[in-house]
Amino acid sequence: MLKQFKVNPEDSLLVQSEDLGNLVSAIFQKMGVSKEDADLGADVLVSADLRGVDSHGVSNMLRNYVNGYTSGQINPTPDMKIIKESPATANIDSDRGLGIITVPKAMDIAIEKANTVGVGMVTIGNARHLGMASYHAMRALEHDMIGVCMTSCPPSVLPTYGAEPRLGTNPIAMAVPAKNDHPFVFDAATSAVASNKIGIARRLGAKLEPGWLADEFGTPIMETMEVPEKYQLLPVGATRELGSHKGYGLSCIVDILGGVLTGFGYGASPGRPNFGHYVAAYKIDAFTDVDDFKSTMDEWMYMMKNTKPAPGEERVMVAGQPEHEMELIRSKEGIPLHQEVVDWFKDICGELSVEFSLG
Amino acid sequence: MLKQFKVNPEDSLLVQSEDLGNLVSAIFQKMGVSKEDADLGADVLVSADLRGVDSHGVSNMLRNYVNGYTSGQINPTPDMKIIKESPATANIDSDRGLGIITVPKAMDIAIEKANTVGVGMVTIGNARHLGMASYHAMRALEHDMIGVCMTSCPPSVLPTYGAEPRLGTNPIAMAVPAKNDHPFVFDAATSAVASNKIGIARRLGAKLEPGWLADEFGTPIMETMEVPEKYQLLPVGATRELGSHKGYGLSCIVDILGGVLTGFGYGASPGRPNFGHYVAAYKIDAFTDVDDFKSTMDEWMYMMKNTKPAPGEERVMVAGQPEHEMELIRSKEGIPLHQEVVDWFKDICGELSVEFSLG
Repeated sequence: MLKQFKVNPEDSLLVQSEDLGNLVSAIFQKMGVSKEDADLGADVLVSADLRGVDSHGVSNMLRNYVNGYTSGQINPTPDMKIIKESPATANIDSDRGLGIITVPKAMDIAIEKANTVGVGMVTIGNARHLGMASYHAMRALEHDMIGVCMTSCPPSVLPTYGAEPRLGTNPIAMAVPAKNDHPFVFDAATSAVASNKIGIARRLGAKLEPGWLADEFGTPIMETMEVPEKYQLLPVGATRELGSHKGYGLSCIVDILGGVLTGFGYGASPGRPNFGHYVAAYKIDAFTDVDDFKSTMDEWMYMMKNTKPAPGEERVMVAGQPEHEMELIRSKEGIPLHQEVVDWFKDICGELSVEFSLG
Repeated sequence: MLKQFKVNPEDSLLVQSEDLGNLVSAIFQKMGVSKEDADLGADVLVSADLRGVDSHGVSNMLRNYVNGYTSGQINPTPDMKIIKESPATANIDSDRGLGIITVPKAMDIAIEKANTVGVGMVTIGNARHLGMASYHAMRALEHDMIGVCMTSCPPSVLPTYGAEPRLGTNPIAMAVPAKNDHPFVFDAATSAVASNKIGIARRLGAKLEPGWLADEFGTPIMETMEVPEKYQLLPVGATRELGSHKGYGLSCIVDILGGVLTGFGYGASPGRPNFGHYVAAYKIDAFTDVDDFKSTMDEWMYMMKNTKPAPGEERVMVAGQPEHEMELIRSKEGIPLHQEVVDWFKDICGELSVEFSLG
């Protein structure tokens, strides 16, 4: 059952995904979540770890979710209701349910609708944290559909020329199936850098790159320097001259589709702990021959990956490729958990009377 | 009829939009385009000029279109055919028709489908140049719908880490109605800067900003310098450290939806003169109450516009605001045409036996 061993000087444990998933599910169940929902939520978290998206995996997120359940901010038994619907659309009141559990279900509704009329598009309001956006988008792949997911997050990012955060990191994800190659899976925040990257830079004493952040007054920092005490996040593009109005505008699109369109507000209003989500599925067969499409995606991926690299660069990659490569490794070798995370697991298992089954 | 006067040392004429539209339509008709189609194409071009998007207006584009028609690359009487269809989708073979004329028609099909099932999504293959992407997206506004438009362009932009262009400038446009405020209208290339901005910088002897371009070998130029003889365009984000994988990935999304999904290839294959387009309409009433949505958009726009500006900045704007403000001015005062453009008009009118009616 357990396959774990020390791997590096950081004192990490390598844990098999199935074991980690079972433990996470057991903890969710102690929060009052049904077994089925707990298994789904565990799958979303462990998938993030398998794909190397540690920021959205077990180590980084489970504690927040446990806190959200125990403080009452997250509803363990949400009564999800479709409040408006058409053949291609639905708008759901997710009753403060955790996004990693409610959004896969919303995506399944979108997939069903796309199967019937070609496109399915579902908004989810009154919601909590989404987890890894690409998980939900990737749910469309096995149905030979293109999957899309966005989430309107509480504000942390400046608009272009602005001194106050008005938008969340508002990620956009899209998953597209290929034939023999791995799927194209784009999943990125519309901010210049992820917030946790800044935390890591500060911990390591690394310097900021120009354009990563604005100072506390909103002026983009365009020199190489240490991470300041107070700072603000910038949209992709960093400055107007470098195209930050593009990152800002795309973030607005996410706030409108995942926020305003739900009828439950948007990132800045009501703000935390609210989130709003958006998923969509496009049936490839409703546009063109599926087999031709997937073969062309193989050809397109091959072209992109075989682009001559710029001097000093090793290779050109395609969205979803690093995560695919990591998944191949971690599925076999296991997911590394830092000793500090292992200790947290031991503590929380003690508190909740869950058998600690990782070591 | 004519309202024109010299405005500035550059010797521009100010021309009323209606007069300009009539002249452009007459020229399209001489290319073999029907009056109805010619009027539509003229409206797209003049709308770009009215909104200050001169890069996609009459001065910059009409000559290319005339060349395309006379060389046989653009078909003046295309037989647009829906080759695959579902209640929410259609895929169109546009028979080498000019995008500024075929895509509004495709958008009308998307709007009709959205009216019936909530979402309409139409791909257009075997196509020619799109014009201003937001024109097509904005067509949804009067129907209380959100409009989307993307176009897969021939390659001119490097992938992250790449030394060879693989993607077009691949713009994304989205238009969203508000109640009393102007609509939110995002329309931006996924490249760091527009190609014509570089041309202007070179003409004016202006320096490059760091991150605008890569050198001819693909290395991003991160210093302030004059425009080099040979260069390459970068995706939004400029370098991997600043998030160019996001601009690159978004450009890929456009290439897939506007290219691969049409079944007629993608940006790099077959390349010029082919383009592929994608439009979509989302019916707001299929998600939430339209009046509530539009009121919330007013509130959201107000919040964004009233963000405290960063030091030295005048104000925070919302996508579509500068274009809306320009349209108010140019609708009244006229559209400026450089003398060189006026001369071209005189020449082409002579060649085609069209009455030159601008002065």
